[in-house]
Parts: sequence; structure tokens; C-alpha cells
Amino acid sequence: MNIIEHETLGVPAEVLKLKQIPDQAPGAGEVRVQILATPIHPASLLQISGQYAAAPELPAIPGGEGIGRVVEIGEGVQHLQVGQNVLLAGVGGTWRDEIVAPATGFIPAPPGDAEQLAMLAVNPMTAHLMLADFVDLQPGDWIIQSAANSAVGEMVIQLAAQKGIKTVNIVRREDLLLPLKSLGGTIALVDGPDLADRVREVTGGAEIKIAFDCVGGDTYERLVETLGYGAPIVSYGTLSGKQPELNMRALIANDVRPRGFWLQKWYGTASAEQKQAAMGALAPLIASGAVKTRIDSRFPLEEIAEAVTRAAANGRDGKVLLTPSIA
Amino acid sequence: MNIIEHETLGVPAEVLKLKQIPDQAPGAGEVRVQILATPIHPASLLQISGQYAAAPELPAIPGGEGIGRVVEIGEGVQHLQVGQNVLLAGVGGTWRDEIVAPATGFIPAPPGDAEQLAMLAVNPMTAHLMLADFVDLQPGDWIIQSAANSAVGEMVIQLAAQKGIKTVNIVRREDLLLPLKSLGGTIALVDGPDLADRVREVTGGAEIKIAFDCVGGDTYERLVETLGYGAPIVSYGTLSGKQPELNMRALIANDVRPRGFWLQKWYGTASAEQKQAAMGALAPLIASGAVKTRIDSRFPLEEIAEAVTRAAANGRDGKVLLTPSIA
Repeated sequence: MNIIEHETLGVPAEVLKLKQIPDQAPGAGEVRVQILATPIHPASLLQISGQYAAAPELPAIPGGEGIGRVVEIGEGVQHLQVGQNVLLAGVGGTWRDEIVAPATGFIPAPPGDAEQLAMLAVNPMTAHLMLADFVDLQPGDWIIQSAANSAVGEMVIQLAAQKGIKTVNIVRREDLLLPLKSLGGTIALVDGPDLADRVREVTGGAEIKIAFDCVGGDTYERLVETLGYGAPIVSYGTLSGKQPELNMRALIANDVRPRGFWLQKWYGTASAEQKQAAMGALAPLIASGAVKTRIDSRFPLEEIAEAVTRAAANGRDGKVLLTPSIA
Repeated sequence: MNIIEHETLGVPAEVLKLKQIPDQAPGAGEVRVQILATPIHPASLLQISGQYAAAPELPAIPGGEGIGRVVEIGEGVQHLQVGQNVLLAGVGGTWRDEIVAPATGFIPAPPGDAEQLAMLAVNPMTAHLMLADFVDLQPGDWIIQSAANSAVGEMVIQLAAQKGIKTVNIVRREDLLLPLKSLGGTIALVDGPDLADRVREVTGGAEIKIAFDCVGGDTYERLVETLGYGAPIVSYGTLSGKQPELNMRALIANDVRPRGFWLQKWYGTASAEQKQAAMGALAPLIASGAVKTRIDSRFPLEEIAEAVTRAAANGRDGKVLLTPSIA
């Protein structure tokens, strides 16, 4: 089988190597799975280059999610069958064409769009959990988010629209506004100093129930100013690299509630029931194409350097997928 | 009757005037109450000088809490009797020697230390609610607070000690350490850059369950570094006048939860049952002297200029009380 590996931290296109390792038969309780599609997320690129909070143990195989097909089952495996599609969620090292691992690490995939399902467990799951776990949002409620054109941001728009929740979507540039409205975003605005006033104007002064931010700095500070009494602002990243100043007046007089969200921790601590519930709510929407992640391009493992270069490029329009077993 | 009034915002010792107004008989449902003691809180001084968030309507009678004795009851008043002591909580304008107001605005006082009860509704209530409303603290749990020598801070120490909760108490100067330990504080430390390391050392790496801060700035940022996973940090003021930088790593990776506490809002929104429950938990401890607020000095209304000057003085050792009807 073939794997993508790096022995040192560094520029992904330089340190990542395609490597052949011996084929392996599944042991008792294990399955052998052919990887159909696995995405290249920015977090993986940061991790490879050593810029992520948690450094990988080297040598490392990157990749955090994907979809595969069961090609062989070991003794005693009950819930999976040969030929069945499975999701790889919480299984590390997915950038490869085959994996042998305990059957419990794989979730049976519903029928439907396999590439979309390959990208379910990270960005759509983040959007789903942030919408579900902090505030009991009802149809007609308003929410606001920064980086609305990110993979998570576009998923927030679509999942919210499915539930009748209205979204105020903040981006950095004019040309990003229209695509977000066509995805179902209620309002799209360019970030700027007078943001809170403009939000009040276009929403008719509606109460904003929650904010999602992955920018930090000024943008975070401006989102805080738009919030209703007691509303959380949930951080899931700091793209600007700048920590915001905490607005004490908003905290004390308006009960604004800063929170953080970390998907990796959720996978590590959520109960099996919680995971099944989240997957059960999300998978049908993804499989049916009701909500979608944009795909920029697809690469075989042999073109890993091109793939990671494309994934880091400015003009990229959606996710870059590795498709090891589709050729 | 005599009242303390100001017609303009300004230096309290200059703008506050003693004024005689006509005596008044209680109408139906009203009672006439003689004020026995009412404290001078820093928030009142800020409000008089125009430095507080909410500006008073002028002319204004300052004062937010106190204890009085019912001297006359109007028609239809059931739950109060002449001669009974009552708490003034949530009744504005307590700096006076007599007040006529609806009986529903007064809470029957338990027997016990009247001066201590006069100071129950603001600082001890803040400490009680912050300890009760954010985390389910158990005996043996650790908490941390800044400005531990403030009126709220000392009450947090004593209320926590009553429940077997361990406190890490942060102050600005060495000479404040010993008094806090003698109040029942488990640990007292002087604030400084290596605070989190020292806290870990003296607590043996115990998990800190919640922080209370009314300083802001650097102190807030250091408290954040001491907290356990998922712990709130509750702000009830910003004495330094500086807003802290929000530590995104702590927020996302350690799930630290910044919150605000505003007593005025609580009085405006809590249900009658919530208020009774809080009062019922707190009043016996105050009335019996189990927990105490230090008293610096007492002044009659005639010496209001001296009283507010003393209340703003550096060397003050406890609260300054106005005692209008004790002479």
C-alpha cells in the first residue's frame, strides 16, 4: 500500500513523500479499507510545517478524515461488510490508499455523494456542533459570523438556512458577498469599523443570538458589539493571529459570553451517543446534497506536492481532495 | 425629614448637600421607615462624580442599600409592623434619615447585627451569587480571585471558607497577605508576572474551578492562566481601567469561559423566589456574625462631606457608614 509521509517538519510540498509499505491483512476485529477520498485541510498544512498547537510525532502520515470502501474483514467483525462505504472520522493518518485498523474506528456511510461525505467530519461537524451546542436556536433567530466564506462559514450558512435561522455573514471583500447570499445567507456585509451600526440597520435592530468567529483581533471586537444580551461569541480559530481586547462593558452590562470550540477535544470527550446523534443529524443533509462543500480540485497520491501547493494557493475555490483509489 | 442630595455631577464632598424636606405620612400600602445605617459604596461616589456607566437623574439622592426601622404603616400593609427592622435592597436613594415607600420594597430583617445587615445587599450578595450561580462548587474545590482585600473579596473568602471551598487570594501588596489568611483564605499571593507558576506550586497543581476578577488588564490575563479546563472567569469590575487581551489558546484549547456579573441587573431580573433563596442563604450568616464586613467609621448625615472624603481615602480600613438615626 501507498502512504504520504513526512519525516521532518517543513514546507509541505518539500517534506511530504509518497512511500510504499507492505500490504497488510486485517487481524481479528480489524478491516482493510481502500481510501476513496480524503481532504487537505489548512490545519494539516500548519501541522506539517510545525505551526500548529499540537506537533505530530515523526514520521507522520497527515490527514484527519475521509471516506473509504471495505475490501477485507477480519475475524469477528460484525457491523461492516466487504463493499460497504465507511467514514474515517477520528482516525488519524488518512492520506494513503489503504488502511488496516479496528472496525470500531469506521462509521458506515449512508448512500449518497461519497466526496461530500469524505468531508463531513471536520468542517460540517464544526458548523453543526457550534449551531447546536451553545444556544437553543429557533427558526427566525439571527446569528452572525466572520470568515463567512470559509468552509465552516459556508456550512454554517447552509445548515442555518435549513433550519430557518437567519445569518449575518461578514467577509473581507465585496466580491465575496454575492456567493454567500446565493448559498442561503440572509445578509452579507464587508467587515469594517462601523459594523455594529450597519448590522443593526440591515437587520432592523434584530437581537443577534450568537456569533461564530475564527478571525480574532478587530473583527472579534466588532462582532461583540453586534450581540444581544447574554449571547455567546464562539471562537474556533484566530486567522488574523491577533488576540482581541476583551470588552468589559459588553461582558458585564450586556452579559456577552466568550467561548471556544475545539473539534479535536469534542471527538476525544463526546460520548458514543453524542457522536451518533451529531452524525445522524448531519449525514443525511450531506449525503443528499442538501448542504455542500465546494470542491476546488482532486489529485492522486502521486501528485501530493501539487495537491498541497494548490491547497495553500490564494485563488483556490473550495477544498482540495486526495482521491487515492479513484483513477 | 433630611435627605442628602446633589443637583449636579461633581466632587462628592462639594456637590452633596443636606436638605430638609417636609415630613410625609405613608399612604395606602406604604410604610414610613427610619434609616438606621446605610453604607457609602465606591459605585455611589463614581455615580455622583459622573464616572459611572449609568448617570443618575438629577437632582439625585444617592445610596443603594441599608437597614431601617418601621415607624408608621399605611392602610392595608400586612407583612410589616411598627418597630420592626427592615432591609432596604433595590430601593434607591437611601442616604436620608427617613423614607416613605411601598411596603413591598422592604424585606423583614432577621434579628442580629443591624450594621452588618445594612451592608448585605450589595457586596455580600455579589460574593454569594458569584459563588453560587456559575459553578457547582463542592467542599475541597479551589477558586481564585483578584482584589481579595476588597469588600467583595473578603466576603468571597469568608463565604467560601464556610463551605469548605479553598481560596487563592491575589492582592497587590505584601502587607495585605496576612489579614486575608486570618479571615480564612487558604492561600494569599502578591500579583506578578509568574503568578500561574506560583499558584500551581502552592496548590500542588490543584484544578482551579473558577476565578473572580474586578481588576482587568494584566491581572485578568494572569488569572486566566491559572484556570482548569472549562472554568469560568467572572468579571464584576475593571478597577485598573484596562481591558485584558483575550487569550485565544486558553479559550479554545482549555475552554476557559469569560463571564460578567452585574448585581444591578440581577436585582432587576431575578424572580421573587430567586431573591428569597439568596437572601435566605445569606442573611443568617450575616446576622449571626459568621461572616463580616469591616467597618472603618460612622458619620451622621450632617457630616456627609467628611464621610464621602473618608470613603474615598487611601488609608480607609473597611466600609464607611452613614448612621442617620443613631445619635
